[in-house]
Amino acid sequence: MSTQPKTNGVVVERLAQTRALMRRENIDAYLVPSADPHLSEYLPGYWQGRQWLSGFHGSVGTLIVTHDFAGLWADSRYWEQAEKELAGSGIELVKLQPGQTGPLEWLADQAKADSVVAVDGAVLAVASSRTLASKLYDRGARLRTDLDLLTELWADRPGLPAKAIYEHLPPQATVDRAEKLARLRETMGERGADWHFIATLDDIAWLFNLRGADVSYNPVFIAFALIGPHSISLFVDSNKLDALVRSSLERDGINLLEYTQIGAALRAVPRSARLLIDPARVTCGLLDYLDSEVSLVEGLNPTTLFKSQKSEADTQHIRQAMEQDGAALCEFFAWLDSALGREPVSELTIDEKLGEARERRPDYVCPSFATIAGFNGNGAMPHYRATEQEHAQIEGDGLLLIDSGGQYLGGTTDITRMVPIGTPSAEQKRDCTRVLKGVIALSRAQFPRGILSPLLDAIARAPIWAEGVNYGHGTGHGVGYFLNVHEGPQVIAYQAPATPQTAMLPGMITSIEPGTYRPGRWGVRIENLAINREAGSTEFGEFLKFETLTLCPIDTRCLEVSLLTAEERTWLNDYHSQVRLRLSPLVQGAALEWLQLRTAAV
Amino acid sequence: MSTQPKTNGVVVERLAQTRALMRRENIDAYLVPSADPHLSEYLPGYWQGRQWLSGFHGSVGTLIVTHDFAGLWADSRYWEQAEKELAGSGIELVKLQPGQTGPLEWLADQAKADSVVAVDGAVLAVASSRTLASKLYDRGARLRTDLDLLTELWADRPGLPAKAIYEHLPPQATVDRAEKLARLRETMGERGADWHFIATLDDIAWLFNLRGADVSYNPVFIAFALIGPHSISLFVDSNKLDALVRSSLERDGINLLEYTQIGAALRAVPRSARLLIDPARVTCGLLDYLDSEVSLVEGLNPTTLFKSQKSEADTQHIRQAMEQDGAALCEFFAWLDSALGREPVSELTIDEKLGEARERRPDYVCPSFATIAGFNGNGAMPHYRATEQEHAQIEGDGLLLIDSGGQYLGGTTDITRMVPIGTPSAEQKRDCTRVLKGVIALSRAQFPRGILSPLLDAIARAPIWAEGVNYGHGTGHGVGYFLNVHEGPQVIAYQAPATPQTAMLPGMITSIEPGTYRPGRWGVRIENLAINREAGSTEFGEFLKFETLTLCPIDTRCLEVSLLTAEERTWLNDYHSQVRLRLSPLVQGAALEWLQLRTAAV
Repeated sequence: MSTQPKTNGVVVERLAQTRALMRRENIDAYLVPSADPHLSEYLPGYWQGRQWLSGFHGSVGTLIVTHDFAGLWADSRYWEQAEKELAGSGIELVKLQPGQTGPLEWLADQAKADSVVAVDGAVLAVASSRTLASKLYDRGARLRTDLDLLTELWADRPGLPAKAIYEHLPPQATVDRAEKLARLRETMGERGADWHFIATLDDIAWLFNLRGADVSYNPVFIAFALIGPHSISLFVDSNKLDALVRSSLERDGINLLEYTQIGAALRAVPRSARLLIDPARVTCGLLDYLDSEVSLVEGLNPTTLFKSQKSEADTQHIRQAMEQDGAALCEFFAWLDSALGREPVSELTIDEKLGEARERRPDYVCPSFATIAGFNGNGAMPHYRATEQEHAQIEGDGLLLIDSGGQYLGGTTDITRMVPIGTPSAEQKRDCTRVLKGVIALSRAQFPRGILSPLLDAIARAPIWAEGVNYGHGTGHGVGYFLNVHEGPQVIAYQAPATPQTAMLPGMITSIEPGTYRPGRWGVRIENLAINREAGSTEFGEFLKFETLTLCPIDTRCLEVSLLTAEERTWLNDYHSQVRLRLSPLVQGAALEWLQLRTAAV
Repeated sequence: MSTQPKTNGVVVERLAQTRALMRRENIDAYLVPSADPHLSEYLPGYWQGRQWLSGFHGSVGTLIVTHDFAGLWADSRYWEQAEKELAGSGIELVKLQPGQTGPLEWLADQAKADSVVAVDGAVLAVASSRTLASKLYDRGARLRTDLDLLTELWADRPGLPAKAIYEHLPPQATVDRAEKLARLRETMGERGADWHFIATLDDIAWLFNLRGADVSYNPVFIAFALIGPHSISLFVDSNKLDALVRSSLERDGINLLEYTQIGAALRAVPRSARLLIDPARVTCGLLDYLDSEVSLVEGLNPTTLFKSQKSEADTQHIRQAMEQDGAALCEFFAWLDSALGREPVSELTIDEKLGEARERRPDYVCPSFATIAGFNGNGAMPHYRATEQEHAQIEGDGLLLIDSGGQYLGGTTDITRMVPIGTPSAEQKRDCTRVLKGVIALSRAQFPRGILSPLLDAIARAPIWAEGVNYGHGTGHGVGYFLNVHEGPQVIAYQAPATPQTAMLPGMITSIEPGTYRPGRWGVRIENLAINREAGSTEFGEFLKFETLTLCPIDTRCLEVSLLTAEERTWLNDYHSQVRLRLSPLVQGAALEWLQLRTAAV
C-alpha cells in the first residue's frame, strides 16, 4: 500500500474561506506577510495570521493566496520545517534564495491587467506598499490595503499581549525622558518637521525610558507615539501601566491614550502639519488615517540614530553587564567541561544551564534571543534551534557552537564561542583559526568616522576569503542598550546596501561575528560585541576604533595557533589578559580555575 | 594707490551677449557643463564652450549664468587657477567640495516657480536631465534642452577634430569585429532589445576594432553607432577613413554614415523598436530625435562590460606591453639617478625624458595621460601638472612622485613610483611604507567573484587608516586595452556607490594606488595595475585574485623596511624577483645595472 499524503484539513478549509472572502471583495491575490503594525522582528500571537492561515510555524515567511494557487515564500533556514508543515495543505513552498525574486516581485510579475492584489495595510511598510503599488500600476493592476480579511476568518484570534510596562530607571537609564524628548524636537526642527509619528517599539521604549515584555527577548511593549508641536502622546493599553509609571509619565507632560486610539489621533493631525516618518518603519494602513494634505518629511527616525549611539555613562553600565555575562559564561563553561563525558549533555541541556548561570547574575532580565547550541552538523545551520523533538547529544569528537545572550538592566549581550568536544580535527581547527583571524582583523581596525559600515566587512573577510572560504550572513549587526539584540542603522555586511544611514558613529555597538559553515559537518562562528570609540583627529580627519566589550575566553583548544601571525597572537593574549583581569573578581572555585586555564597565553 | 582688479573685458562681453540671448528666449538660467555628446573625459575644442564663455581653462567645471549672477563650480584641484582666470570676469568661483551641493542641485534649489533653466541637451546625460527636470518640476520650474546658445554666440568656434581613423589589427586585436558584434546582438536579445545606440567613444572604438586620435591620450575618434535588427551603422566624418579601412568595415557589413547624420538616423528608428541605451552615457538631446513611441531598454552598454573583461590573449599582449613599459622606466630611472646632482633636472625634464624612453619601445603610440611629476609640495596635489610657467627644480632633499603611462598597441599602462631625492626624512619614509602596505594588502587579496568593487577598498586602506591617515581619491580605476586609461564599470573606492554594475569579474584590469598627501609638504602614491584572475572554486563559490601587471622596481630607499611584516617583505621581494626576471632581457648597461640594484631583496 502506498503512503497517501495526509490532507491538512484545517488549512485547506481556512484557504477555502479566504478565497470565498476574496471573491466577495473581487480580490485576485491576497498577501499575508510576517509582520505587525510595528514591523517588529518578534510578533505577538495576534499578528501571527500567516502562521494561522498557512500552518507554517517558522518566524519569517510570506503567504500568497490566489484563486488557483497558494504559495509560502521562506528562506533556507525554514525549508525542512515548511515542507513538513505545509504537506497536504495545498500550499506550495517557494524557496527564497539570495538575489532571487521575492514574493512582492512575484506578485507584481504575474499580476494581470485589471487584477486586484490585497494586503492588510496595517502590517505593510509604506516603502513596500509604494514599490508594490507602482509595479502593479505598471501592469495595469491595483493594490488594496484597506482590508483585513483575517479578522473575519479567524474566530479565535488571540488578544493583544498585556504584560506590565515598567520604567527603565537610573542608574542604568542615564538620560531622562525629558532630555530625550527635547533632543528629538530639536532634530525634528532641523529636518523641518513639527509632528512625528513613531511605530517602532524599540524607538518608543528608548524614548520614554520604559520597558515591557510583550514579545520574547526584546524588552518592548506594544505602543505608538505621536509628537506634535505642543503635545507628546503615548498610545498603550492603559491596563499595562501602574499608578506609579502613569504619574511619572504624566509629570513629564505625556498624554496617555489607549493603543486603539492611534487611528483617531492620526486623523486629527492638522492639514498644515509637516509630519516626520520613516517610510520603512511605518505601515501604510496607519498612514492612511492622515489627511491627504499633511506634508510628509521622510527619513530615519531620529530616535533610531540617538539610541544607536551609547553615551559614556551607558558604556560604563554595558561594561559591567559584560563582566556579569562573562562570569556567568565562565560558570557555564566550567560546568560543561566537567560534565562532558561524565553525564549526558544535549544541546537542550546547554540552553538550560546557560539560562541558570545568567539568572544568578545581578540585573539579569531574560535571554536576548533563543540560544543556538549546535553540535557538529547542527552548528552548520546559522539559525539552528534545538527542540524537544530534535536535538543532538554532545558526544564523540567535534565542535560545539554556542550563540547566546542576555538582557541586563545595563546592557544587552550576544556572544558566540566554539567548544572542542573530544578531539577536534585539524580541518576544524583551521576553520576556527581562520574565523578568529577575521575577528581579530576587524577588532583591530581603525576607520574614518562616518564611513558606511557595509564597507568595513572586507576587513573581516579578507583572511577568510584568502583561503577560498566565505559565509552567507553579515559580519555584524547593531545591538541595543537593554533593548533589541538586532538594531540599526549600522550593519557590517557586504551584502547590505551602503546607504548614508549606515554611517559609523561613536558609541554604536556592533557584533563582530564571521563564520564558516560546512553543511552536514560543522559550523564555526566566533562573536564579540564591540563599541565604536573615538580614536582622535589627525590632519586626515576623525577616526574611530573598536573597543571589544564581550569578555569570555576564546577556547584555544579549537585553534591551530601556529597559523596565527605574531600580531594576531598578541591580540589574543592581550584579550585574554583583559578577560582574566576583569572576570576573576566575579567567579570562584571551578569557574575561576576554568577562567585561568582558558586565558593562558599562547 | 590701491590695485584695481583688472576687468576681463572679453568674458564680460560674452556674458552680456549670452544674457541678451537668454532674454530673447525667456531663459532665467543657462547651464554650460564640461561635456560633449559622447560624455568623454577629454573634450575636443568644439565642445570647450564652458572654457570659451568663462575664460576658465581647467578641464572640469560647470558654468551657470542667470540675469544677476554667474558662477563657476570647480573642485579643489582648480581653485587656484580658477581664481586667477575668473578675476574681473564677474563670474564667481563656487568651491565644489565632496558631499556638498553641486551646480545641478543649486540650480534646482534656487529655481523660482515658472522660471526656465536651459542646457544644451546635446551635452547633458539623459540621467542628469531627468534628475534636473524632476527637481525643477517639483518647484514649478521647467528645463529646456533644445537650445544651443553657444553656436550663435561663438563666431570662431573650432571645427570638429579630423584625425585619421585606423584599424586595431591582429595580433593585438584578438577578437574580430564580427564576433564582437555577434556577441553584442546576443546580449541585446537577452535584454529584450532589438536596437542599440552607443555614443561613448571607447565603446565604439572597442566594438569596431578601430582607433583614432581626436582627443589627447585616449586613442578614440568622434563617432556614434546604431545597431538595428538588420543593420550596423557607424557615424563618422568620412574624410577620416582611408579606402582600406572603409573597405574593411564594409566587408563586415557596416554602413558608414556621416557623423552629422545621427539625428536623422535616430529619427528613423521605427516606433516598434526596443532600443537599448545607457542613460548615463547618452545625452538627452540625441534621444530627443527618437519617436516618443520607441521603447527604451536601459542599462549599462554591453560593450562596457565586454571590454572591461580582457581575454587570455589580450592579457598576453598586456604582459608584453608592461615589460616594454617597465624597460622604458628602467632606462628613465637610471638616467634620473645619474643626472640628479650632475645636471639641472626639473619636473618638466622628467616628462620629456619619460616620453623619450617610451618612444624607443616597440608598439608605443602615445602617453595615456599627462605625466604628473611632483616634487615635495607639488606631489601633494594628486592631479598636479607642471607647466612652463610653474614647475619645480629637483634638488635638495625629499620625495619626487612620478605618475605616468603609455598607450601601446597591446595595452595601456599607468604607474606611479616614488623617487628619493637627497635624503628623504623618516616621516617621508614612514608615509611611503604605509602606502606600500596598502598596495600589498590589496594586491594579495582574494575575493568572491562578483563582489562589488567599492567594497574591496577597505582592504587597501586598513593599514593606512590604522595610523590615522587617509586619502581623498579612490584606490583603483579600471583601465582599457589600448583604450582609455580610465574606464568602468568597476572602481575600488569607498566613496563610490556600490552598484551591481561595479561587480568584479575575471579579466578586469584595475589600478591599485593608495596615497598620502601632506599639503605644501609632500605627496606619496604607489600605483600598479592588476588584473582579476580566477582563483578557483570551492564549496563557498568562485574566487578571484589579482595578478600584478605593472613591472618596475619600488624604490626601497623610500621605505622604512623594519615597519614591514614578514609577509609584506616576502611580497616585495617576490615582486622584485619577478620584475628583475622579466625586465632584464629588455635593458642593457646603466638601465640593467639600475634594475639589478633596485630589485635587491630587503
